[in-house]
Amino acid sequence: MRPHVVLFGDSITQQSFRSGGWGASVADTYSRKVDVVLRGYGGYNTRWALFLLNHLFPLVSEGPSPAAVTIFFGANDAALLEGTGKRQHVPLEEYKENLRKMVQHIRDCSPKTLVVLITPPPIDLDGRREYARSMYGDKASKVADRTNEVTGTYAEQCVAIAKELGLPSINLWSKMQETNGWQRTFLSDGLHLTPKGNAVVFGELVKILDEAGFSDLPYDFPQHSEIDEENPARSFTQVCTA
Amino acid sequence: MRPHVVLFGDSITQQSFRSGGWGASVADTYSRKVDVVLRGYGGYNTRWALFLLNHLFPLVSEGPSPAAVTIFFGANDAALLEGTGKRQHVPLEEYKENLRKMVQHIRDCSPKTLVVLITPPPIDLDGRREYARSMYGDKASKVADRTNEVTGTYAEQCVAIAKELGLPSINLWSKMQETNGWQRTFLSDGLHLTPKGNAVVFGELVKILDEAGFSDLPYDFPQHSEIDEENPARSFTQVCTA
Repeated sequence: MRPHVVLFGDSITQQSFRSGGWGASVADTYSRKVDVVLRGYGGYNTRWALFLLNHLFPLVSEGPSPAAVTIFFGANDAALLEGTGKRQHVPLEEYKENLRKMVQHIRDCSPKTLVVLITPPPIDLDGRREYARSMYGDKASKVADRTNEVTGTYAEQCVAIAKELGLPSINLWSKMQETNGWQRTFLSDGLHLTPKGNAVVFGELVKILDEAGFSDLPYDFPQHSEIDEENPARSFTQVCTA
Repeated sequence: MRPHVVLFGDSITQQSFRSGGWGASVADTYSRKVDVVLRGYGGYNTRWALFLLNHLFPLVSEGPSPAAVTIFFGANDAALLEGTGKRQHVPLEEYKENLRKMVQHIRDCSPKTLVVLITPPPIDLDGRREYARSMYGDKASKVADRTNEVTGTYAEQCVAIAKELGLPSINLWSKMQETNGWQRTFLSDGLHLTPKGNAVVFGELVKILDEAGFSDLPYDFPQHSEIDEENPARSFTQVCTA
């Protein structure tokens, strides 16, 4: 009945319903207007995510197509070949091609769906090191699993693909680094988001959704103050027989 | 594809995806296992909510029926006839009958759906007064819109209906009052929930869902650590052709 907004991505999407999470905030903001569908897959890169496309966005579907889809990958693609995340690494050119395939597939399903590309956030090496030590102590790898520079090249190409395909995008990598102390303010372990980091994603995404008319969508049923308490059936008949 | 958990209720449900909200926490806890569907209608009582039943839970539906539904009304039904919320008031006997109708309707749609009844939270008169003053200043009504005692009778009957129908229930009214200082710890305006109040609903609901097997539900796709990086197609073929 309500339009769907699908959040498709890696752990930063999967965790977006934690306290202060950007996904839950989107659901709250558009409550009674859209349904937010969480499709976050922790640890996934774009290569693995391609296998999900046909299942999450079937070409032939009984239901309505999503009104919007966020595609938020790259943090794992950008894992270094020399680090502990090497199995997640996807070369930059393949990352770009995978993003193109995702967008094309969603367009094949539903040409009207608003697709938003989100870049990975920046990487804070100190935060990554501290996290590894807190998890593995002296056994923590001394080699970085990601660097800010390499992740930046993925972010840059994500924005370029959005431009090439005529889509809105959120350059989280750049946006976050505009704030002094972004390393601790926005990142909890040098990669994942604090509540303030979640607020950045939320703020940027809501701008795009509102510009596309999402805040103007109708409520699914009357506001309680509009219900005729003497004859409530009348208030609902108008809406529900539509 | 995934089982649905529908949260049906008034503002305390509608607001459950705010930061620290109980609904978002349920979505986070069972992420990649269930989809949480938010159907909260601020200001609604059970009388008005009955008009939504056929739309939210159609008797004939293409899609899968919900795995679980929470029914969380009563805070508005219990508004006093003498107060500012009088138009929301529903007599106790009608509230009981309306709860029965809701449960019966959901059972008619899908006999296997787990239905959980949740009572309204307790009422803190001082919190309500302060809230009214903060909103309306000197024009705030001096008459209470709700009392803890009256709301308690609705909570008691909600639990009785759950027992009569063989359903699990959460007696939020009683549970919260077991904690000293519940008035400020759990309630933000004498009625709605603080993050700690949300945590009470979440904790009680997860106990019920886990007992019904929800934590044992399978993930929708392989965990990233289980993906064969040399041959990822194999990891997905096993799951996706099922």
